[in-house]
Amino acid sequence: MSYVSSFDDPAPLAGLRVVEGSAFVAAPLGGMTLAQLGADVIRFDAIGGGIDFHRWPCAPDGTSLFWASMNKGKRSVAVDVRRAEGQELIAELITAPGPDSGVFLSNFPEAGWLSDEALRARREDLIYVNILGNPDGSTAVDYTVNPSSGFAYATGPAGGVLPTNHVLPAWDMSTGLHAAVAVLAAERRRARLGKGDLVTISLTDVAFAMVSNLGYMAQAQVLHEDRPPIGNDMYGAFGRDFATADGRRVMVVAISRRQWKSLVDATEIGPHLPGIEQAFEVDLAEEGDRFKARDALAALLTRWFNQRTLAEIAERFDANGVCWGVYQTFRQLLETDWRASPENPMFSDIDQPGLGKVRVAGSPLTFAGLDRGPTAPAPVLGQHTDEVLGDVLGLSGTEIGRLHDDGLVAGPASTAA
Amino acid sequence: MSYVSSFDDPAPLAGLRVVEGSAFVAAPLGGMTLAQLGADVIRFDAIGGGIDFHRWPCAPDGTSLFWASMNKGKRSVAVDVRRAEGQELIAELITAPGPDSGVFLSNFPEAGWLSDEALRARREDLIYVNILGNPDGSTAVDYTVNPSSGFAYATGPAGGVLPTNHVLPAWDMSTGLHAAVAVLAAERRRARLGKGDLVTISLTDVAFAMVSNLGYMAQAQVLHEDRPPIGNDMYGAFGRDFATADGRRVMVVAISRRQWKSLVDATEIGPHLPGIEQAFEVDLAEEGDRFKARDALAALLTRWFNQRTLAEIAERFDANGVCWGVYQTFRQLLETDWRASPENPMFSDIDQPGLGKVRVAGSPLTFAGLDRGPTAPAPVLGQHTDEVLGDVLGLSGTEIGRLHDDGLVAGPASTAA
Repeated sequence: MSYVSSFDDPAPLAGLRVVEGSAFVAAPLGGMTLAQLGADVIRFDAIGGGIDFHRWPCAPDGTSLFWASMNKGKRSVAVDVRRAEGQELIAELITAPGPDSGVFLSNFPEAGWLSDEALRARREDLIYVNILGNPDGSTAVDYTVNPSSGFAYATGPAGGVLPTNHVLPAWDMSTGLHAAVAVLAAERRRARLGKGDLVTISLTDVAFAMVSNLGYMAQAQVLHEDRPPIGNDMYGAFGRDFATADGRRVMVVAISRRQWKSLVDATEIGPHLPGIEQAFEVDLAEEGDRFKARDALAALLTRWFNQRTLAEIAERFDANGVCWGVYQTFRQLLETDWRASPENPMFSDIDQPGLGKVRVAGSPLTFAGLDRGPTAPAPVLGQHTDEVLGDVLGLSGTEIGRLHDDGLVAGPASTAA
Repeated sequence: MSYVSSFDDPAPLAGLRVVEGSAFVAAPLGGMTLAQLGADVIRFDAIGGGIDFHRWPCAPDGTSLFWASMNKGKRSVAVDVRRAEGQELIAELITAPGPDSGVFLSNFPEAGWLSDEALRARREDLIYVNILGNPDGSTAVDYTVNPSSGFAYATGPAGGVLPTNHVLPAWDMSTGLHAAVAVLAAERRRARLGKGDLVTISLTDVAFAMVSNLGYMAQAQVLHEDRPPIGNDMYGAFGRDFATADGRRVMVVAISRRQWKSLVDATEIGPHLPGIEQAFEVDLAEEGDRFKARDALAALLTRWFNQRTLAEIAERFDANGVCWGVYQTFRQLLETDWRASPENPMFSDIDQPGLGKVRVAGSPLTFAGLDRGPTAPAPVLGQHTDEVLGDVLGLSGTEIGRLHDDGLVAGPASTAA
């Protein structure tokens, strides 16, 4: 046998089963990250859908483009979780036996029938990953965490005094990925030691840890400095955006000496640099000095950019190995960038129930030896109710029929518009 | 025995060994994520430090606050990797035997002595996680990926036509976390099937996948809509920032009906809402309708905020369970927020060589049953050279001494300022 992957192998996380009780971004993203690597992720929702089932943007018929995008590759069960019998079913699902089961990922309150205590009484080695707002369990969402992180006051035009929020829900994103890490780390530990645990992650901790990790906290503490907004400039090296002759904008970056040399060669500003070095008392071979002299450098470069079209710039930059990027809207990205098209194996055009043909991304992880396979669509709500009740809980067709008759569970038909 | 964690247990990833060849944010963050969960992460660098060793911000003596913040809890070896003998040492380290070794995380080019082929010839079941710029291997950095993602044209003041970059290197952050997921997913697979693989992740794929996951791509494709910048407003529900009477700013969010009711109750705007519902033909019980009528709602709320201090608002909001946050700079965060202080178990004040006492974050994952222990500082460059050569490669003191004499490796003394 070979000790390296082969194309016929199952997906990386094949076998692992995760039950997801979730809404919005962080927990669903954590689950989807695992699902797209081959885990069996079973999301449960109230009959008719949870609080995020109609999250904007929506198609004209009300189908949430957000929900369809954030739940790809999962199985969906719809259960009336307000009733004790429904709660019992989900608790059984979460704590189902087997070494690859007993993993629960949730951003619901860890309380009542979903308390760690109640669930762990059913399965002691349960892995329970719970996402919080604040570390003390109080409410916070990405949009209230970010203002407190410091980033809003460091983002936006130079000289600006008003805070600028990210539009990207960066802390939700980061928390969801941390949740995937938590599941895998805890599962590794359980496979070795036989022990489960409750792992909590708060949006605030994820955000504030990043403030520490990126050096902003040390800068505030050691240098007593707040980093001010500097527009689209890169901090500590040379990077800035420029307008082209044909009305587009590009970003150029020169961190390494090689990147700086490429930019200087491509734009032929070399002869003017000794003058700048003398005037600003800097050594442009140093990245920090390029940051100090950035306004002078940008003034020099602006003329060059303004006289050239995007196509001319692209050709010149690519020939010289310049590190650069073009500004695009989401539509321009979708319609013109090969990296967001099926030319890139991560993307495929699939049939998403309720939406028709849409372009979707698979996992950003590419296992060289494994077949990616087609990206699975999001389920229809309740699509896998019967299958999961049968396969995982071992209920008979008769028993499942009774649950339907009782209105305790729902399949896809009963949730169609 | 108990099947749940106990405080005397080792850290979650104890035993796992990862060799890191890295610079800047993504790969170092991936390694630190694993190190802070207890993995033995060995970062190798050139003698004197790699390209990010002096990354801004720096202390007056040149010590990089960035580097110290991004490499906490790792071991550091310093080797002259330009020489074949140094490359041989690192390759041996990467492919050292044992079920918990043979994991390499890197953002260096997968080529030459660091090619997958060369390393896999030494250990067939190697797990090699390689971070790229673009999926085709061409250069891209966070600052050139973000402009192309679409987010810059959706960020910033409403009505603005110029793109606004994130200051947060969100794609580096996300890629680093994906790298941690990759290591754990691949290691899980190797432990079960005995197979390794080369896993690649590009910054671009990570960014563009998120454009898909969050529904922006579907919105562009299905609705032919680009999401415009809307300042600090939240999309699809009610969320906006307001100035207080004492010159601070706060963000409030009402996504759920409960959150909306709390905000309405706290600010006593209830009596004025029927008029808004009539004028704008909306039902304010619907989150999407609150978004449609947001300017009218904000006008109503502005008066309330402007007449109250932050302290008054905080008291009222907390009593009513409003979902809100205060805008802070990084210094305000450090100096006034308990969540960024040792009152929060994630933070501790530690002695960081070269910087003295600094506040640092540990892992955002809290295992309820496990002792967090103190957060480990970043190593001094080369601090663990001798220890790693001895423990992992089994070299004798004499052999290690010869490598030092040869100038092939360096310990902490020879890199001190």
